[in-house]
Amino acid sequence: MSNEIDVGILGATGTVGQEFIAALENHPWFRVTWIAASERSAEKRYADAASWQLAREIPHGIAEMLVNRCVPADSPSLIFSALDSAVAGEMEAAFAASGRTVVSNARNYRMEPDVPLLIPEINPDHLGLLQQQTETRQWPGKIVTNPNCSTIVMTLALAPLCQFGLRQVMVTTLQAVSGAGYPGVSSLDILGNILPHIPGEEPKMECETPKILGTLVDGDVRPHKVVVSAQTTRVPVVNGHTALISVKFNAEPTCEELINALRTYRGRPQLEKLPTAPNHPVVYLDDPDRPQPKYDVDREGGMSVTVGRLRECPVLDYKFIALGHNTVRGAAGAAILNAELMKIDGLL
Amino acid sequence: MSNEIDVGILGATGTVGQEFIAALENHPWFRVTWIAASERSAEKRYADAASWQLAREIPHGIAEMLVNRCVPADSPSLIFSALDSAVAGEMEAAFAASGRTVVSNARNYRMEPDVPLLIPEINPDHLGLLQQQTETRQWPGKIVTNPNCSTIVMTLALAPLCQFGLRQVMVTTLQAVSGAGYPGVSSLDILGNILPHIPGEEPKMECETPKILGTLVDGDVRPHKVVVSAQTTRVPVVNGHTALISVKFNAEPTCEELINALRTYRGRPQLEKLPTAPNHPVVYLDDPDRPQPKYDVDREGGMSVTVGRLRECPVLDYKFIALGHNTVRGAAGAAILNAELMKIDGLL
Amino acid sequence: MSNEIDVGILGATGTVGQEFIAALENHPWFRVTWIAASERSAEKRYADAASWQLAREIPHGIAEMLVNRCVPADSPSLIFSALDSAVAGEMEAAFAASGRTVVSNARNYRMEPDVPLLIPEINPDHLGLLQQQTETRQWPGKIVTNPNCSTIVMTLALAPLCQFGLRQVMVTTLQAVSGAGYPGVSSLDILGNILPHIPGEEPKMECETPKILGTLVDGDVRPHKVVVSAQTTRVPVVNGHTALISVKFNAEPTCEELINALRTYRGRPQLEKLPTAPNHPVVYLDDPDRPQPKYDVDREGGMSVTVGRLRECPVLDYKFIALGHNTVRGAAGAAILNAELMKIDGLL
Amino acid sequence: MSNEIDVGILGATGTVGQEFIAALENHPWFRVTWIAASERSAEKRYADAASWQLAREIPHGIAEMLVNRCVPADSPSLIFSALDSAVAGEMEAAFAASGRTVVSNARNYRMEPDVPLLIPEINPDHLGLLQQQTETRQWPGKIVTNPNCSTIVMTLALAPLCQFGLRQVMVTTLQAVSGAGYPGVSSLDILGNILPHIPGEEPKMECETPKILGTLVDGDVRPHKVVVSAQTTRVPVVNGHTALISVKFNAEPTCEELINALRTYRGRPQLEKLPTAPNHPVVYLDDPDRPQPKYDVDREGGMSVTVGRLRECPVLDYKFIALGHNTVRGAAGAAILNAELMKIDGLL
Repeated sequence: MSNEIDVGILGATGTVGQEFIAALENHPWFRVTWIAASERSAEKRYADAASWQLAREIPHGIAEMLVNRCVPADSPSLIFSALDSAVAGEMEAAFAASGRTVVSNARNYRMEPDVPLLIPEINPDHLGLLQQQTETRQWPGKIVTNPNCSTIVMTLALAPLCQFGLRQVMVTTLQAVSGAGYPGVSSLDILGNILPHIPGEEPKMECETPKILGTLVDGDVRPHKVVVSAQTTRVPVVNGHTALISVKFNAEPTCEELINALRTYRGRPQLEKLPTAPNHPVVYLDDPDRPQPKYDVDREGGMSVTVGRLRECPVLDYKFIALGHNTVRGAAGAAILNAELMKIDGLL
Repeated sequence: MSNEIDVGILGATGTVGQEFIAALENHPWFRVTWIAASERSAEKRYADAASWQLAREIPHGIAEMLVNRCVPADSPSLIFSALDSAVAGEMEAAFAASGRTVVSNARNYRMEPDVPLLIPEINPDHLGLLQQQTETRQWPGKIVTNPNCSTIVMTLALAPLCQFGLRQVMVTTLQAVSGAGYPGVSSLDILGNILPHIPGEEPKMECETPKILGTLVDGDVRPHKVVVSAQTTRVPVVNGHTALISVKFNAEPTCEELINALRTYRGRPQLEKLPTAPNHPVVYLDDPDRPQPKYDVDREGGMSVTVGRLRECPVLDYKFIALGHNTVRGAAGAAILNAELMKIDGLL
Repeated sequence: MSNEIDVGILGATGTVGQEFIAALENHPWFRVTWIAASERSAEKRYADAASWQLAREIPHGIAEMLVNRCVPADSPSLIFSALDSAVAGEMEAAFAASGRTVVSNARNYRMEPDVPLLIPEINPDHLGLLQQQTETRQWPGKIVTNPNCSTIVMTLALAPLCQFGLRQVMVTTLQAVSGAGYPGVSSLDILGNILPHIPGEEPKMECETPKILGTLVDGDVRPHKVVVSAQTTRVPVVNGHTALISVKFNAEPTCEELINALRTYRGRPQLEKLPTAPNHPVVYLDDPDRPQPKYDVDREGGMSVTVGRLRECPVLDYKFIALGHNTVRGAAGAAILNAELMKIDGLL
Repeated sequence: MSNEIDVGILGATGTVGQEFIAALENHPWFRVTWIAASERSAEKRYADAASWQLAREIPHGIAEMLVNRCVPADSPSLIFSALDSAVAGEMEAAFAASGRTVVSNARNYRMEPDVPLLIPEINPDHLGLLQQQTETRQWPGKIVTNPNCSTIVMTLALAPLCQFGLRQVMVTTLQAVSGAGYPGVSSLDILGNILPHIPGEEPKMECETPKILGTLVDGDVRPHKVVVSAQTTRVPVVNGHTALISVKFNAEPTCEELINALRTYRGRPQLEKLPTAPNHPVVYLDDPDRPQPKYDVDREGGMSVTVGRLRECPVLDYKFIALGHNTVRGAAGAAILNAELMKIDGLL
């Protein structure tokens, strides 16, 4: 097909890398032609290098592909990065410096003032930061990032409510083990247990949210004034981060207004029918027993965030529960949707 | 031994009833001589009637005991109640009306103005309500209650902090399946899953806490002014409720003052060395990975609440994590400690 | 569509009943027009009566349907039965006596000499027993059964090997909790635990297998001479029964011959392309780490049995591992495939 | 105390090393004075070097101890080895060559003809091999081993039955994740899943058993003629290996004779009241639902093997279920019991 765009994947053997490969298998615009991973995997067949974790099989064309080293030579111009943050900083810069467009899931550049921290439903105009990035960094390529997985789930549930003047957010997460990669969390740590601490996770939710919900003014993102407090835990669930959220508003919306805002929320991905966009970025369920990972994590291919139990909060104003698929909507699917937005905006 | 007091157990075959039996096996003051349960179990051997859930075996003397019907005749004067709330209201009243002292784990009388909602470390003087109870109800016996399991865990962590003027509490719980009794939660509902709703649990935490922390004035409990907002979930853990808590104070305590208050907290059970009292009702751990059910749920026989990760909260003032054993400190152990306090206060 | 056949479901609200409804949602031949369940559910909306357990939602047309009592009046002529064995004996007879064709998953009639115990790939000719059934019972209708879930998984792996003269089978199963229905296994019994005993399961595997693998001679099934010994356990897995099998043969096949027999196995469902038939009733995997419930339980919609690790056994001849979806291939899917075979054989 | 013997632990930071430290905390004869681990841990405080996995806390004296390198200098004369097999071969030899008595849990020397593969209840006379070992190897020290964890559990259940002429054993195991060490099994591999293959485990059970049950004749162990076939799986259980076993005998014992043999089984550890010896090395339970890891794994401090469900096997003669604690009876406790036997035999 004439409009197929070659893409490469950095960190292709890891948990998120595998989700990229699965999600791109039949993508109408993008075609994986190049995969790279750490030195340990380099020059192996992908099927031998990756501990494949998904129930669906490795796409046929990919299984036999040789894994490259993470250097730009011979790589296509569009690169998805699922690199570990220990190495992403330098490597992604090298790809951008050599003219590649890097659409990254790593945290390294998220809070840089000239790097979009993009959720296409929420802040598609933040791509405007790229102009500043080009000027500042003198890269022929560029870097665009998506937020942390828990942050994406939460902000998609918060964005429809911003119209009521969001002031404060308290959130507690119950996060799935796939969020820690593979081998990641030891079974001895999590079978029948709860881990009360995920290093680095709470600051991410507290810092990234104001930037995501911020406003582009004169080429800069002015952060939203909302104050976020997060407590993050790990639970024995395979996929799906659950967030229990309380919020305080400047306005005095009713319960019905809030639920209606969640139910009717749409963004550019929906209006422009981007290939990976869910019809409903937010699904509100009336059943008080929902959302649950077991039933709701795979809605619309894992790209919808499910919300339920919106009710009054005696301390702030309202409280509710949100659930999203951490490696799809929270990682690989997020980055692919970012690239789709960039394509229709002529940025690829 | 001359000072042994005969006790009976209502609801002896259920999860909490079993904990009563286990905890009383070698009790220096109390001796189980009478057990009762529902019609279905009546007149069976205890070992046949109960689906015994504990790793330790049924105490020898109990296994062969016949299960009675839940009627006062022939029962001893001290009764522990592990009845289901569907029947506890009427039955406990019948026992009190026939002169028994009912120390109950059921929720039915907890919020009655003339019934103590007792945690011996926190509000031992609330036993003063019994005078009003006797006057109002004309029972020759009496009813004393302990709070809901999650509420006990949380309030034991909050009580040491009340000196700083507690104003607001936000809490999210991750509760163990043993809290729902047996058979309780279906494996199909919880394996690899999270249940976002425990019916009736959130109002209990929000209502019971002000009464527990309240002050006895002129024979009435004046509730504490703290406002509590709770979100409660069920997780695939066998024993141990974890609570993620944020608090706001009137004063401006430092982190160190709060941790010191938690560490040095003692109450009458400790001062009077009650048999079931833990040396440390609250244990504070410095390790950021703690508390965890796996390591901490059985501290001091399950009677200590473990707290960790106390740090600043961007929305309220401070946040931290508390963990307690829901069927021991949160149920059977709580009631036994109540009875021990009543004994030294001459109320048995 | 002219060739749609109306079907009813007995026991429609239970775990297997739900799988029937899900599997028939878009069936090319069968259309669910009537559902029935116990007195407790009768005359309720299906969505209210059933504790729906599947990730996919209740089919729209079914959710609003009223649940009937389990009596034949007004029921269609083809009935799938997911009844509990406590009631299936009498009820299924009543439906057959009133002219219905009952395709049952219950165990009550499986071992009756005039009732087919059918696996369409293995013994489609056993439908010949229906002639005897009609003569013996004088029912205007009929009853056809499928085997126990574990037995189906095992016999599909054994059938391709029968050509080598199967003499002895030792099997240990690790069975999923969905096999016990809902609420079924209590979370307190299975979280982090193994149940070593599934009442009634071992005799089923030992008795049903010789009948399934038996030969129809003069209108009777002559049982296969194979001797089976089973040990069955319950494990904390949601779907998928794993069977560890050792076998002894009369002939002396090589490992390659056995694997080849498994890989090339096809039966009438494949030849006649029945709608619910998998392309490969048995899938053999070379990876020594497979099959695993996580990866393999849903192969071909849950209708394939996956086999791996075939190797020599020092005591018998060979040993290997088989895995199948207990509520699909082992229950609802099995019965639907039976009905499809009956249709093309003109028995509906 | 005058009779305290100083001991060292190789591999002290791992899962089994931790069990050694916990089990020796209050040992009447042995006192841990020296701990060693890999280069990565060397010269750190033990509490910093080890990811402590046990619910009880690190013994006070050990937490502050510095971790040594695995070289003999300064080590005491009795060494427990919890080393990984990748390094145990060379290191244990070095310690024996420098005069230490190495009581090892590693597999490297188990099948050497001059090394005892010891279970004190079963084959205490196999210590007679040490004479040959001294002659062959010219070590001033010596090496004694205990079997693989699954093998110990199974052979303790088989040993009492050997009097009936054990000919064939078929076994399927359901093994706990603690058997793989820490971090060991990834949570992504085992949550809600079964792993059908534990590399190297089946040959161990098949080879070690005949040596353990063998007879010392003229200074050599003549292996028992029993043939063993094993299938080993990993299940989501923290501690406790379950083995489903079928056996064939030369004699024709009754069920009662077998159960009686299991119940009355005692060995030298019981007769000589060794400190770590359980009163009952084998406990037989009549309840058909037992043994279960949840209830039975910690019997007699984890040193008893629990057996249940002994019944006829249609293929071999009898089948039953055995359960034991893999890191206690199957590892650290096994080695300590070995050393206790050596002490009373004057071999330390």
